[in-house]
Amino acid sequence: MTETALQQASAATDTPRAYAALETHFTELAHLTRILGLLSWDRAVMMPKTGAQARGAQMAALTKIRHRKLTDPALGTLLDDATAEEDRLTDWQRGNLREIRRLYTRSTAVPDDLAEALTKTANACETVWETAKPDSDFAAVAPLLSELLNLTRQSAAAIAETCGMAEPYDAMLDTYDKGARYQDIAPLFSALEDWLPDAVNTAIAQQQESLPLGDPPPVEQQMALGQLLLDKMGYHGRFDTSSHPFSNGRGGDVRITTRFTGGPFTLECVLTVLHEAGHGLYDMQLPEEHNTQPVGGVFDLSMAVHESQAMVWERQIGQSLNFWKFLAAPARKIFGIDAQNPAFTPENLYRQVNTVEKSFIRVEADEMTYPLHILLRTGLEKAMIDGDLSVKDLPAAWNDGMKDKFGIVPPDDRRGCLQDVHWYGGDFGYFPSYLLGAMNAAQIFQAMRRALPEVDTLIENGEFVPLREWLRDNIHARGCLEMPREVIRHATGDYLQLDNFKTHLSKRYLDA
Amino acid sequence: MTETALQQASAATDTPRAYAALETHFTELAHLTRILGLLSWDRAVMMPKTGAQARGAQMAALTKIRHRKLTDPALGTLLDDATAEEDRLTDWQRGNLREIRRLYTRSTAVPDDLAEALTKTANACETVWETAKPDSDFAAVAPLLSELLNLTRQSAAAIAETCGMAEPYDAMLDTYDKGARYQDIAPLFSALEDWLPDAVNTAIAQQQESLPLGDPPPVEQQMALGQLLLDKMGYHGRFDTSSHPFSNGRGGDVRITTRFTGGPFTLECVLTVLHEAGHGLYDMQLPEEHNTQPVGGVFDLSMAVHESQAMVWERQIGQSLNFWKFLAAPARKIFGIDAQNPAFTPENLYRQVNTVEKSFIRVEADEMTYPLHILLRTGLEKAMIDGDLSVKDLPAAWNDGMKDKFGIVPPDDRRGCLQDVHWYGGDFGYFPSYLLGAMNAAQIFQAMRRALPEVDTLIENGEFVPLREWLRDNIHARGCLEMPREVIRHATGDYLQLDNFKTHLSKRYLDA
Repeated sequence: MTETALQQASAATDTPRAYAALETHFTELAHLTRILGLLSWDRAVMMPKTGAQARGAQMAALTKIRHRKLTDPALGTLLDDATAEEDRLTDWQRGNLREIRRLYTRSTAVPDDLAEALTKTANACETVWETAKPDSDFAAVAPLLSELLNLTRQSAAAIAETCGMAEPYDAMLDTYDKGARYQDIAPLFSALEDWLPDAVNTAIAQQQESLPLGDPPPVEQQMALGQLLLDKMGYHGRFDTSSHPFSNGRGGDVRITTRFTGGPFTLECVLTVLHEAGHGLYDMQLPEEHNTQPVGGVFDLSMAVHESQAMVWERQIGQSLNFWKFLAAPARKIFGIDAQNPAFTPENLYRQVNTVEKSFIRVEADEMTYPLHILLRTGLEKAMIDGDLSVKDLPAAWNDGMKDKFGIVPPDDRRGCLQDVHWYGGDFGYFPSYLLGAMNAAQIFQAMRRALPEVDTLIENGEFVPLREWLRDNIHARGCLEMPREVIRHATGDYLQLDNFKTHLSKRYLDA
Repeated sequence: MTETALQQASAATDTPRAYAALETHFTELAHLTRILGLLSWDRAVMMPKTGAQARGAQMAALTKIRHRKLTDPALGTLLDDATAEEDRLTDWQRGNLREIRRLYTRSTAVPDDLAEALTKTANACETVWETAKPDSDFAAVAPLLSELLNLTRQSAAAIAETCGMAEPYDAMLDTYDKGARYQDIAPLFSALEDWLPDAVNTAIAQQQESLPLGDPPPVEQQMALGQLLLDKMGYHGRFDTSSHPFSNGRGGDVRITTRFTGGPFTLECVLTVLHEAGHGLYDMQLPEEHNTQPVGGVFDLSMAVHESQAMVWERQIGQSLNFWKFLAAPARKIFGIDAQNPAFTPENLYRQVNTVEKSFIRVEADEMTYPLHILLRTGLEKAMIDGDLSVKDLPAAWNDGMKDKFGIVPPDDRRGCLQDVHWYGGDFGYFPSYLLGAMNAAQIFQAMRRALPEVDTLIENGEFVPLREWLRDNIHARGCLEMPREVIRHATGDYLQLDNFKTHLSKRYLDA
């Protein structure tokens, strides 16, 4: 704790002293966190490639400073003192204290040398993966992945022990989705797994073919359509291109990107904008008065809730027939497409974005098959963290899982266990949040429909602002006042249930 | 000094221990400095205006961290220890130690509370100035400017005393041009002042009128011409627009901007690109192997030398007839102008960029009258720092000076003493570096001509790479190995002399 922090803290007379000192300390940490975000945005969107080495060193230096501040032993004492003041704190302050305690406890649970070894090994492993993937050469990256898994297991065990979690894998889940525990997720995933493979087969058998859309329009036109959507949604912020789409920033400076990969024209350009804008609106509508504090969502918003915001816009809204009843006309106008073109009717566009197909690649998967990709990965990473699956057996286990869930086996590891960067960059425990996000989104959208019975008409008219405002009032503006589970319950009236997701998929893909 | 710094330092066995620890410490400081530069670039070029408040807080937090590291008392001890090791250091290491000593001494010379008061008052004063200027309301900003001047004088006195300078104004000059002293500059400026007013009158009387260029071409075409020039110069980096042109970054990630203000078409678009690229090439060609150390020019390149690099390209090259013999044809082609158009001959374009005219506004002034604007400001700020001119008497003193030097008096303070932000932002001592830069540039270009006798032909052919390489080898690649005075002597064979500048102006404006 710096002297300045304590001075400033004692100046704030209404706020208990130790808590106020924590706020001051975390204000600085919040600024550093936002700066790291900007450095990373710039690297992906603006920086010439020749700046990569220097930028890496800059980010490493700032990350180190941030880590030192986050693990400052004086914070431990302050946390104890602030806990004694807890009955004098407001709800938001108590939420903030809970978030601060979590950040400090998790950061200090892992010894510095282990944390450093993890970062270094993850960087090395990801670098090797970058060429191992195109070469489809799992053997090249296996030794580093083994080492990384070994360090990750140590780290997970240390966190689980310090935080009193039931098992090490919980520490990994908790990294991306605060408070998530395997014992809560397992029944949901398991019930979904029982139902989904057959449902996928039914959906494929039933679906009507759609007409192809022809060549892609110029990038400028696709960006213009994206901007039209963003304006309708009331998104205020930058909109750029990068090689992987992402969102960044908060409040008055939110930034999203989309990408253009070439190939035949799909409506990915629209769905990606909706997805990233869903993330962006969350960050834009976080509570401004808490924008330098953990409770304001600066450090650690749950990925499962964040992803749900993307999924509400992409899956629930953007893949509905009503949405295409709205967008077909502006899309035809911007792309210069004749009104009689049968490929650009709302119905054909709707069929296009909802085509179900079994495939090897997660990021290209449709809404119905996507969860199977996640179920596969969740099972494998749980086994790896538990010590029940070794890295050398991963490719075979992957292919067995594909056969079991999809009935197809990838012809090489490039399209198999090498396809995703996550594990190779040390991100075990991340995958489930994608599926939890989709499930949360279904439940949230059903709650939104109850609150706004005219939601279908609003979507058909492109009137998205009431939807955005409902999300703001019921989710975004509450920041991290409560834990993610409670966020979902507050917004929807219940904890996450599988039924809502199944109902949604059934209505869209099985009841046709 | 952190433990890590000392550990890393002792691992470098060839390098004396204390010096190595300083290098480690300054590597971190270099990264923070570069990050601050990027935050400022992004603010000017990319950030939505609604991000301003958060960005200000982020930059303030990082500046504070940087300041704490720069004034860390442990550095004083390490500097003493490293001084004892000096005979074991290489030339570059000795240069680095000199730079580190300067940074530490200057930073610690001003008490923290005074430094903080200065920053706060400067911010407040600049904010008031932003509306006082368009309102031409000097009285509105005078109290804050008085306070700022008062604090600046205290700070200057403290630095001058600690660093053993002859007078407080030296501390201000030294801020922007390391090692500059008033006693060295005064005779140069005084001799120029004796000669220039009459020379300006002669130039105006002699000059041929030029044909106007018509309406400005679209911004995209002007950017395309700028990019063509940058390619010819071998500038590799970003090229964007902002409301004030500037350069930023270093090495593999240099960034420059230009601006478009509307109004009748001038060749400012070309000259601004040359100017900023001149700055950019300096930063691009600094010694890569020292890119995290003060000796590599991360912290504190002399403004007078930096400006000279802009001036070599803008004034010496870009305002020469040979340059327009090269650029007239590509400009006509990009702008879609007929080859017979008499306004777009090399001769008319040359006359356009060299039109001499007495005016009130420094930033719009031509090469001949520009120095008079600087001489006016230098005299006034020297008197203010010395306590011989109070803020309330500034407008009258300004107008007297304009009458004396130009024979014209501005109709209001907006076009008088309120026009430049420098003093209102606390930047006393900055103005002289503009003129020193122009003078340095004349001397440097004459040295370049001696080394490259074919320089006129190269320019006429648009072959700028040999010029860039000469600047790299003789100036840029030497970083801060020597003090700025010595940089000029190394590159040109002599310390700065007025004759070179007079010769240049005479040849261009008086010998026609």
